[in-house]
Amino acid sequence: MQTATQVTLRQKLQHQIDNKTKPLGALGKLEEIALQAGLIQGTLHPQLNRPHIVVFAGDHGIASTGLVNPYPQSVTSQMVLNFITGGAAINVFCRQHSIGLTIVDAGVNFDFDANLFHGKLLSKKIGRGTANYLEGPAMSASEVQQAIETGKEVVAELAAQGCNCIGFGEMGIGNTSSASLIMSFITGTPVEECVGRGTGVNDEQLERKRDTLREVFRLHLPAIAAKPDAQTILEHVGGYEIAMMVGAYLKAAELRMIILVDGFITTAALLLAKLIDSHVQECCFFSHTSGENGHAKMLAYLGAEPLLNLGLRLGEGTGAALAYPLVQSAVQFLREMASFESAGVDRAE
Amino acid sequence: MQTATQVTLRQKLQHQIDNKTKPLGALGKLEEIALQAGLIQGTLHPQLNRPHIVVFAGDHGIASTGLVNPYPQSVTSQMVLNFITGGAAINVFCRQHSIGLTIVDAGVNFDFDANLFHGKLLSKKIGRGTANYLEGPAMSASEVQQAIETGKEVVAELAAQGCNCIGFGEMGIGNTSSASLIMSFITGTPVEECVGRGTGVNDEQLERKRDTLREVFRLHLPAIAAKPDAQTILEHVGGYEIAMMVGAYLKAAELRMIILVDGFITTAALLLAKLIDSHVQECCFFSHTSGENGHAKMLAYLGAEPLLNLGLRLGEGTGAALAYPLVQSAVQFLREMASFESAGVDRAE
Repeated sequence: MQTATQVTLRQKLQHQIDNKTKPLGALGKLEEIALQAGLIQGTLHPQLNRPHIVVFAGDHGIASTGLVNPYPQSVTSQMVLNFITGGAAINVFCRQHSIGLTIVDAGVNFDFDANLFHGKLLSKKIGRGTANYLEGPAMSASEVQQAIETGKEVVAELAAQGCNCIGFGEMGIGNTSSASLIMSFITGTPVEECVGRGTGVNDEQLERKRDTLREVFRLHLPAIAAKPDAQTILEHVGGYEIAMMVGAYLKAAELRMIILVDGFITTAALLLAKLIDSHVQECCFFSHTSGENGHAKMLAYLGAEPLLNLGLRLGEGTGAALAYPLVQSAVQFLREMASFESAGVDRAE
Repeated sequence: MQTATQVTLRQKLQHQIDNKTKPLGALGKLEEIALQAGLIQGTLHPQLNRPHIVVFAGDHGIASTGLVNPYPQSVTSQMVLNFITGGAAINVFCRQHSIGLTIVDAGVNFDFDANLFHGKLLSKKIGRGTANYLEGPAMSASEVQQAIETGKEVVAELAAQGCNCIGFGEMGIGNTSSASLIMSFITGTPVEECVGRGTGVNDEQLERKRDTLREVFRLHLPAIAAKPDAQTILEHVGGYEIAMMVGAYLKAAELRMIILVDGFITTAALLLAKLIDSHVQECCFFSHTSGENGHAKMLAYLGAEPLLNLGLRLGEGTGAALAYPLVQSAVQFLREMASFESAGVDRAE
């Protein structure tokens, strides 16, 4: 429900947008973004300060079985090192747009040298990979709580430094499987329709991934059906990095930050965050429709219309980084464009 | 047809893209752009230098009848002044992305003060608006030739200054009508399916616009059917700014510049340029699908898959400016991302 103040602000923002020197509605979706950004920040003059992307990395017990992933589990830690040395796609795009980047070890199955990576890697390791959910819950109740709290703390710290626009990314071999299961449990979509090729399984591997996740779904259904909340779902089929993202969404929305939602796994984390606080989505802009099977359906479930549709399926927050300049454009046209009056331009007859 | 060198370069570029630290194909459309950029520049290391947008402005005789446009003709010159003082959407987006911006008076029905706007407005005026094509051809043969030559010169000058990535925009009350007619004559689509709301005509105005353009189509069909080339089409139903864009495309492609194609009117100019040189499109990236009716069909005719779909329908080159950072991202991931070897990341099994 909207307060009277919000209704007034919405009308004022719309009036301001309509008075810019352009035909009514001619900036399309950018006009919707400008309006929403103003409502999030509670101002007629929204702006983006110190934009930042946080990549949460964690390993998954299931990955060591090789049943769901073509890349070995070692790639998670190797990619974290790649993030630290600046060679990954997310590094390139963050440099391009002057977006700050923080890498968080949420639970990678590797011991990073704390001295070597001081200031480049936030060590928030909860464990060396989750347990294999083919054999039992992936995480304990306290691990989930600790991860959510950590995600909140990371975001609160960035906000304290002046960041008001944030995107989340993830790295974790096996985590599209976790996201597929979360999607299935929350949206009621049959698990096989939530499963995709992830980092690129072939047809045979995809069939095995589907079979495996159907089995995992059946195994955890009784417990989750009995208590279908975010905590329970995370314990059974989640991951450290996903649980941290849940906390990160909650804190960012609480602080009225502009949130750039990335792809399949980060959107799955949003589904969980919404179970805890239904208002989180008010602060979200959806960056892109991933090429990963299931993401389009997940977005439709949320009623989201993303900015980009480029067939990306990389994760790391890359879609959020690529969509950021469009949000910036929306905010800047609102701040900088002349009005019909100020520019002395005639209106339509 | 591709030469052996091009085939080899294509293979080398694809190999380089596939060796970046990401799953095969995970950067989706950005990978296609990186490949095409390399082929345009003939290098494994493409880069964008001094990106620039040129906005061509011109008036249309038909606009003074009020039959096709809700905004008065005076808005063309008023918007040119808005471009010069930096208050239009294209100014905001060019500032945001450090894109150079040149405004060309191709034939606006207003005398700009040459002293006042020295260095801010390129005065290339061919006439004070075209003739009304309800009564005869819009331009003379020599006017069309002069406009095409001027467009070439403007681009050649920018290239000489080091620009290798260019977008075109336009301003001209009534020019969606011209673009609709061009589209109909070249693609064979019935004129009523090429007509849209332009700057925002209402239902009644749209019906009148359709009726008017059907009449214009019938009037000029015999001459164009007899000689269906770019020169004839431009003479009969073109505009000064559209003819200059045709020349601009031709020169940019000749110089192997990366071309960012904007919306409905600039794509109509590309249709004409392709009649003169069928290779022009090799250098083109399609920025967005406009909200203007007909643009999606025009793009389908060209086999083009644009980067953005934001419901923009503003012109001015705004779509090109908004798509520019995505092309930059494509080029930069190719230049800056680590390979599996250099980063020590394991491959898929």
